[in-house]
Amino acid sequence: MSYQKVNERHLDYFKSFLPADRLFYGDAISEDYSHDELVGEKMMPELLIRVTSTEEISRVLAYANAERIPVTTRGSGTGLVGGALPVMGGILLETTLMNRILDCDEEDFTVTVQPGVLLMDLQQYASDRGYMYPPDPGEKTGTIGGNISTNAGGMRAVKYGVTRDYVRSLTVVLPDGRVETFSGKVVKNSTGYSLKDLIIGSEGTLAVVAEAVLKLVPQPACTVSLLIPFADIDSALRCVPELIRSGTGPTAIEFMTRNVILFTEEYLGSRFPDKNHDAYLLLTYDGNSAEAVEANWTRAADLCIEMGAVDALIVDTEERQSVVWTARGAFLEAIKGSTTEMDECDVVLPRTRVAEYIRFTHELEREYDIRLPSFGHAGDGNLHIYLCRDGMDDASWAERKETVFGRMYTRAFEMGGLVSGEHGVGFAKRRYMLERLGEDQLALMRGIKRVFDPNNILNPNKVCEVD
Amino acid sequence: MSYQKVNERHLDYFKSFLPADRLFYGDAISEDYSHDELVGEKMMPELLIRVTSTEEISRVLAYANAERIPVTTRGSGTGLVGGALPVMGGILLETTLMNRILDCDEEDFTVTVQPGVLLMDLQQYASDRGYMYPPDPGEKTGTIGGNISTNAGGMRAVKYGVTRDYVRSLTVVLPDGRVETFSGKVVKNSTGYSLKDLIIGSEGTLAVVAEAVLKLVPQPACTVSLLIPFADIDSALRCVPELIRSGTGPTAIEFMTRNVILFTEEYLGSRFPDKNHDAYLLLTYDGNSAEAVEANWTRAADLCIEMGAVDALIVDTEERQSVVWTARGAFLEAIKGSTTEMDECDVVLPRTRVAEYIRFTHELEREYDIRLPSFGHAGDGNLHIYLCRDGMDDASWAERKETVFGRMYTRAFEMGGLVSGEHGVGFAKRRYMLERLGEDQLALMRGIKRVFDPNNILNPNKVCEVD
Repeated sequence: MSYQKVNERHLDYFKSFLPADRLFYGDAISEDYSHDELVGEKMMPELLIRVTSTEEISRVLAYANAERIPVTTRGSGTGLVGGALPVMGGILLETTLMNRILDCDEEDFTVTVQPGVLLMDLQQYASDRGYMYPPDPGEKTGTIGGNISTNAGGMRAVKYGVTRDYVRSLTVVLPDGRVETFSGKVVKNSTGYSLKDLIIGSEGTLAVVAEAVLKLVPQPACTVSLLIPFADIDSALRCVPELIRSGTGPTAIEFMTRNVILFTEEYLGSRFPDKNHDAYLLLTYDGNSAEAVEANWTRAADLCIEMGAVDALIVDTEERQSVVWTARGAFLEAIKGSTTEMDECDVVLPRTRVAEYIRFTHELEREYDIRLPSFGHAGDGNLHIYLCRDGMDDASWAERKETVFGRMYTRAFEMGGLVSGEHGVGFAKRRYMLERLGEDQLALMRGIKRVFDPNNILNPNKVCEVD
Repeated sequence: MSYQKVNERHLDYFKSFLPADRLFYGDAISEDYSHDELVGEKMMPELLIRVTSTEEISRVLAYANAERIPVTTRGSGTGLVGGALPVMGGILLETTLMNRILDCDEEDFTVTVQPGVLLMDLQQYASDRGYMYPPDPGEKTGTIGGNISTNAGGMRAVKYGVTRDYVRSLTVVLPDGRVETFSGKVVKNSTGYSLKDLIIGSEGTLAVVAEAVLKLVPQPACTVSLLIPFADIDSALRCVPELIRSGTGPTAIEFMTRNVILFTEEYLGSRFPDKNHDAYLLLTYDGNSAEAVEANWTRAADLCIEMGAVDALIVDTEERQSVVWTARGAFLEAIKGSTTEMDECDVVLPRTRVAEYIRFTHELEREYDIRLPSFGHAGDGNLHIYLCRDGMDDASWAERKETVFGRMYTRAFEMGGLVSGEHGVGFAKRRYMLERLGEDQLALMRGIKRVFDPNNILNPNKVCEVD
């Protein structure tokens, strides 16, 4: 596919309907737009457009499609796999000004939002009205558009599911500018192929999400977390299948190790309730009756103690909950602060294999002399494992990263795991997806990509397109 | 697309690897295979193949694809929209002999099943082991393959969701015989486009489901239903949004009217606990603690009484539950038994519009002098409305059906509804899907169809293909 560079004529067209303070060309574009939260490479767009409406998105796409200019959509840039990087240059379409919550239907328990609404703002909005928006990724400053594009998971997926489970309908702009609404404000749907589900997780390669109707649930009246220390990570992870089988209905089952807690204390400058033990499970229970919630968490605590937990610390005051969950939300940044550079692996495994896999990463640490701190969603088998560069020179870092990533993905695939549980494939993980799914599945994805985007202008060279 | 008729040479090929008792040609095919549970037209396949393995499916498809013979997949034929009718002739691929549950992973709470497993058998299997498979369509003799193909919903969707929410991975055979597994035994997945979600609800037009990994949940320790009579349907339906908002977490909210109950008593020859009132809600609550469940259902009962319910009858013994839910499962057959012929409308609406829509169908009954008995899933906005032929002659029936269907779909669409909540589009509802979604969305679906099935051999003339 050959693309046009953005030129004066293109610029004149965009100036005809976009004000100067939302249109940035060449050197006027801030360097912030050249990267996400993790991918090392810097890639500048030729033109940055900060859109404010569906109609603007439509006009930009229709023109870019006709002129063969690549368009990459970006929310707040909190991705970890380069999904929002303009790897082929062209236009960066930035949605954070489309940050309005358009409607809250309190009869039908839905909100209608623009794609640039931040997760934290939506969560607050819902909670102010007695509702909860359950998807709860650690990164609260990500946009809902970004969450939809990666099918973000988060901390409450064990009980409540992932972003996909909360999207009732999507209004999208197709690459040629047409606006379509997939599905509707309905609870069920068997009306043709689920185009909505195809867009969710497609990382901006098929269409641009311009509006979403999202499901809310009633805010649970009572939420209690438990911090459960263990002598080692293995003992902690062994409890996870039992907790799920227990019928206590945990909302969250997170695991963490002491070293990650120590980085976080340092990073946040605040104290975690306990750091005397090697490993921890962080559980949450919620519900409408304090008695029922207590019955569940006491059963869970007893079960963990029976299986070797050292203690079970109740995190029930608002202050303690805030300390613990703020720490949990800061793990990524804290690990980043502990090293010179890092990269990550977001594999998802059958839940029963998590303990074995974590042991394997510890072997890799010794074998390759590299730090691989990890934490993650034990309850849903989704791990976040970080490769830390520390003092390595360029060549060793490149080589070691290559080898260790290779070993990690291969082992995950042998266990039936997949490349990404929630961060997506973007630019950085394409080859591992190819390795896991094979050429035939990627060919199906590329075929679908061509159906939506025959000129390949939307976020080219991502997800299923491997050089 | 031009197809070949099945000829002697084709037959010789199939005989080379399929035994005679699973291969039926021409007149040897039972007339049972020419229809489903509702669609009036009779359509015979040229060849019926009862497959027993993924490999057989693969060989049949590869050959049919090369020879351009249409292949329609059929489970137990309980569909209502002609999805499994061989409208272009060719091969009918029947999966009910693939009825084994291959594995139950009690650590990961999944079952691996063949597509011909009956829903009732899977539910029993799960319950025998202390689990529940939540999707619960009224028709228990449908196959899991069929449930996946239509994204079947059912009675417990309010709390537990629909079939889509329980499919962890699908092993499918593509039209050229290649076997692929989409997703895996994982709880989350952000690894490329969700091909799994595209297959779910695609009614056998993209690939043949050969194996599925399904999620189970722990069997709730306690289940209580409530039968709540009202003076009229409007008062009953007005309670539904309040029940959902109440935070009591209902598992099911079904509505029914006295006339449907009377047909069912007649059809089953058994007595329903109450039939003195015009309308009823049937609620279910489940959970692990009898106290918590009781707290929820008493709150729900109080709420209904406050809002005008006549009474609240507790259905807690196994015998009473069986009577009520057996009746609920028999509504369709009972209405069918009350008339000479019927057709159905399976619209799904925003939940808040259900009462208004049911009132509208009562107006249609008067306006067109036609019986339109209905029941359905009030809790998720999915209605089943039946057009009864009764004494009409062919011409009046054809004309009245056309007009009344037209009015019903148009009104549903004005309210933001969609053509099908759970029965699918199949053959019978294609034009209404086109009317609702428009040519552009159908063109996307057709493009996807071509990516999977370039020779258009799989279940042609269904879903997005409109003559």
